[in-house]
Amino acid sequence: MGRRDAAAALAVVLAAAAAAAVIRASSSSPAEGFQPLSKIAVHRSTVEMQPSAYVRATPLLLGEQGEDTEWVTVKYGWTSPSVDDWIAVFSPADFVSGTCPNPARDPPLLCTAPIKYQYANYSANYIYWGKGSVRFQLINQRYNFSFALFTGGLENPKLIAVLEPISFKNPKAPVFPRLAQGKTHDVMAVTWTIGYDISEAYPFVEWGAVGGGAAAQPAARSPAGTLTFSRGSMCGEPARTVGWREPGFIHTAFMRNLWPNKEYYYKIGHELQDGSVVWGKPYTFRAPPSPGQNSLQRVIVFGDMGKAERDGSNEFANYQPGSLNTTDTLVKDLDNYDGSDIVFHIGDLPYANGYVSQWDQFTAQVAPITAEKPYMIASGNHERDWPNTGGFFDVKDSGGECGVPAETYYYYPAENRANFWYKVDYGMFRFCVGDSEHDWREGTPQHAFIERCLSTVDRKHQPWLVFAAHRVLGYSSNDWYAMEGAFEEPEGRESLQRLWQKYRVDIAFFGHVHNYERTCPVYQSRCMTSEKSRYSGTMNGTIFVVAGGGGSHLSDYTTAIPRWSIFRDRDFGFVKLTAFNHSSLLFEYKRSSDGKVYDSFTVDRDYRDVLSCVHDSCFPTTLAT
Amino acid sequence: MGRRDAAAALAVVLAAAAAAAVIRASSSSPAEGFQPLSKIAVHRSTVEMQPSAYVRATPLLLGEQGEDTEWVTVKYGWTSPSVDDWIAVFSPADFVSGTCPNPARDPPLLCTAPIKYQYANYSANYIYWGKGSVRFQLINQRYNFSFALFTGGLENPKLIAVLEPISFKNPKAPVFPRLAQGKTHDVMAVTWTIGYDISEAYPFVEWGAVGGGAAAQPAARSPAGTLTFSRGSMCGEPARTVGWREPGFIHTAFMRNLWPNKEYYYKIGHELQDGSVVWGKPYTFRAPPSPGQNSLQRVIVFGDMGKAERDGSNEFANYQPGSLNTTDTLVKDLDNYDGSDIVFHIGDLPYANGYVSQWDQFTAQVAPITAEKPYMIASGNHERDWPNTGGFFDVKDSGGECGVPAETYYYYPAENRANFWYKVDYGMFRFCVGDSEHDWREGTPQHAFIERCLSTVDRKHQPWLVFAAHRVLGYSSNDWYAMEGAFEEPEGRESLQRLWQKYRVDIAFFGHVHNYERTCPVYQSRCMTSEKSRYSGTMNGTIFVVAGGGGSHLSDYTTAIPRWSIFRDRDFGFVKLTAFNHSSLLFEYKRSSDGKVYDSFTVDRDYRDVLSCVHDSCFPTTLAT
Repeated sequence: MGRRDAAAALAVVLAAAAAAAVIRASSSSPAEGFQPLSKIAVHRSTVEMQPSAYVRATPLLLGEQGEDTEWVTVKYGWTSPSVDDWIAVFSPADFVSGTCPNPARDPPLLCTAPIKYQYANYSANYIYWGKGSVRFQLINQRYNFSFALFTGGLENPKLIAVLEPISFKNPKAPVFPRLAQGKTHDVMAVTWTIGYDISEAYPFVEWGAVGGGAAAQPAARSPAGTLTFSRGSMCGEPARTVGWREPGFIHTAFMRNLWPNKEYYYKIGHELQDGSVVWGKPYTFRAPPSPGQNSLQRVIVFGDMGKAERDGSNEFANYQPGSLNTTDTLVKDLDNYDGSDIVFHIGDLPYANGYVSQWDQFTAQVAPITAEKPYMIASGNHERDWPNTGGFFDVKDSGGECGVPAETYYYYPAENRANFWYKVDYGMFRFCVGDSEHDWREGTPQHAFIERCLSTVDRKHQPWLVFAAHRVLGYSSNDWYAMEGAFEEPEGRESLQRLWQKYRVDIAFFGHVHNYERTCPVYQSRCMTSEKSRYSGTMNGTIFVVAGGGGSHLSDYTTAIPRWSIFRDRDFGFVKLTAFNHSSLLFEYKRSSDGKVYDSFTVDRDYRDVLSCVHDSCFPTTLAT
Repeated sequence: MGRRDAAAALAVVLAAAAAAAVIRASSSSPAEGFQPLSKIAVHRSTVEMQPSAYVRATPLLLGEQGEDTEWVTVKYGWTSPSVDDWIAVFSPADFVSGTCPNPARDPPLLCTAPIKYQYANYSANYIYWGKGSVRFQLINQRYNFSFALFTGGLENPKLIAVLEPISFKNPKAPVFPRLAQGKTHDVMAVTWTIGYDISEAYPFVEWGAVGGGAAAQPAARSPAGTLTFSRGSMCGEPARTVGWREPGFIHTAFMRNLWPNKEYYYKIGHELQDGSVVWGKPYTFRAPPSPGQNSLQRVIVFGDMGKAERDGSNEFANYQPGSLNTTDTLVKDLDNYDGSDIVFHIGDLPYANGYVSQWDQFTAQVAPITAEKPYMIASGNHERDWPNTGGFFDVKDSGGECGVPAETYYYYPAENRANFWYKVDYGMFRFCVGDSEHDWREGTPQHAFIERCLSTVDRKHQPWLVFAAHRVLGYSSNDWYAMEGAFEEPEGRESLQRLWQKYRVDIAFFGHVHNYERTCPVYQSRCMTSEKSRYSGTMNGTIFVVAGGGGSHLSDYTTAIPRWSIFRDRDFGFVKLTAFNHSSLLFEYKRSSDGKVYDSFTVDRDYRDVLSCVHDSCFPTTLAT
């Protein structure tokens, strides 16, 4: 479709999207921002093509050498420049269509939000010269791209120029692989996105041990299962309307019978109808340690990272200002690792909030991590919450996604991926990941799972028992929770602290609140020791950690500091756990800005300290001998 | 370390070990002995090197041809020989060290008990000639060995001479493999001990079907998971003090997708950093029959075997006098088998009681069995019991081990190996193995497991349903239980007999009591039939068998014989079950001394006899037709 055709085709209103597009991203979290794409009043868009207006781009062919990310320079201008002018990137390029579902008016209509946008005066002196230039970073997202110049601001968009579509050389290349540990330690899942369905090109992964040695085998090939989802599987707006974008096909293949600690390579492949194979890039990973294995083991935990655009589009740092810092610091640190490592992102991933394209952007952002380390996610309110869809919180935080993109784009070893709880055995650790967006109280399947996960671990070999969930089911002195008068989500502690205590959970992690806070070992709101940093012997309680400063705008604390609150930091950061052996654990909180440690503690204790009787945790004994 | 250096370095007291070293091995079992090593007052050791005293050994290099066991002749003497003189074998040789944990006095200190010892006058005429010679059997136990001559008896040890260390050619060879059936019949686990951690030499097993045929495949390699434990994971003394010895690294690999009844070979391997492989010896085993398979199937059951030393050290026959007889009779009998077979050792394995080195001795003793037959263990009081560690009995029978060595040296298909209960499907048998050292009463996880195990077996194909646990949860007329006035452990029958009855358990095995006893089919203490040896048709009750005469010193009966007690034998022995088909089972009790049958019975019955209604086991019916 040419420039003028597109212009002619573009009209006015997508009425169905009206309310959704400007809705507050979330009304439930302690502190929230707006999804930048939601600020565009797509339904009020009009067309008034201007002869003087133009948009040009270089290069016109992307990924000529197989790149899956490309910088594009866009030049634009017209004779009446304004601070309200802005450049939108649409993908697919055919953003004007008569095929919108439920059109409120006759076609043509603008059906969709752009995938990103930038103000024209981001380019210096644009409003004086009427000419500007910005750079967009584009990722291979299966479809072609179109650049459009609007005036009228985001509130009253008026299209004045549009460029012919440009495209990646192979828009259907397999991109952004993400590893996740399988149901056992010797299985690694790799998930990726591509434009090919299984009927078009058969998906698989080729893999094997790096180098020779005892584990050497001929390269193995494992088939992938294929999933996708449709507009109809979204629960509401904007995901069903202006936020919708075809998600492509999401393939997951399992590499099995891995040898502990061995390095493996893998390469995604798609066999075309003619028998030729489209290959992805090669990557390597290190297989997880076997359960109980005594070796140096390091774990990263954070929540609420979000995404941000390196090109400054979509308000760059206003929505999730720490996101890129956290990502980059992790990537830098990952390079230093020579052992096995695993990452937990405990909910609130891209904050796409119904703008489905943003899931691609997020998977691209974290791909340097996910392609080489198992990346284990939890479900957050921005993934799952939508009224009347079975969740525990009847709020609109997911923008109509109701969990579908998160639960499809990422693999995790849950029995049923719509019940977002699972266990991970990683060397001397066991992680029990809960789902704070679904009921966890006594009598529920989730409560039964949590008890089962906590009770079935052999603590002599896996001493480090960690619980994690998105919302704060434990303790936080965030100001919003303080005003609630509870310092927690409803019935979080009431329903779970007996389990944490009975099974001697060492640390419980939460996100949702966008800062860092660490408690003493606590039970029933009481500190079980006055020690603050060097714990030894019987723990007597669980240490609760809020690690929600992954990137989204920061949350405040209440002014009065509860006795159980040991350390608070209103900054971006993440937690690193290091198990040196079965008796010695190091906990570090690092800021994303410099990667340095701002809080830490150690646990030194023996098996008998885990076994011994503590308050509300004593096993029955007999007087017999 | 030279002889004089060692002498100079050796001084006096390890105070921390004082109480433990002389503590009674157990105060709880119906009849008990003392761990011989506990009689050595390590804490009172002194040094007074005597110029005339000497110790010599031949050979100085052990295992030159790859043997993992070697006989060493030790010659010794001095000018003042006494009946109190004794020879100790230490391993590691560096038994004198300033690195004892928590030293009560300045270094140097004697940190550890020897791994074995012998009185000097075990050699004839030693006290007349002042010269003696004994033979020690040494096993490859990862470290070098030192021989030391003491006087002053075990109560007041005074070191007077010591020999330069000797060693096996490769102290880190993989030794003493032990097979165990995995979570399903087509998986065989092999566990072994070695000095190499995974970072030093990568552990795996190479295996395949013997001979050609349909099951033939290229040799497969399976990686091993690696476990170990540290002094800190022991719960008390002497395991944490004078009884501690580095356990090495315990590797478990799984051979999967086995074809029923096929013979397989396997060979342990460790890949060194330079890519070369250290190989263990080759062994073979027969894969278990598939669940329900109709073929000749034989099972061995016993408890409380213990270990003993073929060289007569450590009092030889006083601690577990029948242990070697039982082992040798089983090994001899195993050679006659040409079918598949499986062995159950239902608790009390080495009676190491906190002297961790003795686990190596035990695994070596039973290796001729365990290397070729699945060897399934249960947890006994001497493996697990320690106060305030979550067990049901608050006694010190494990010498501070609190289950850690047993649960690490041996594999068994439990979900959580610290919860020592599991099921085994073996052809026409199902075994439900319980853990009498943890609470089994209604409402506990173990009770739920037992009901699940008993209720989920398809009796038409697996008619022979067997329960086993260490302590007598059923019936025993042992004198100690009789004096208690219960003939069982507390609430054993009360909590479990409804399950046994409801699900028609055929036989329940127990150990703990060191003799043999067999009941009638019994329910609520009543014999359900007057038949004593040829049971047919509906059983109406469960037959309870005490098979605790594996080797430890024998237990007495009460004088009055209860009506349910059909056969008692105060001797060493074991039970053999033979299933000829789905309708015909032979039970035999054999003495260890001659391998002959001293008691037996048969069961002949059909599927409908299992299904039919018996007291407290009737399924509901309806009046409708």
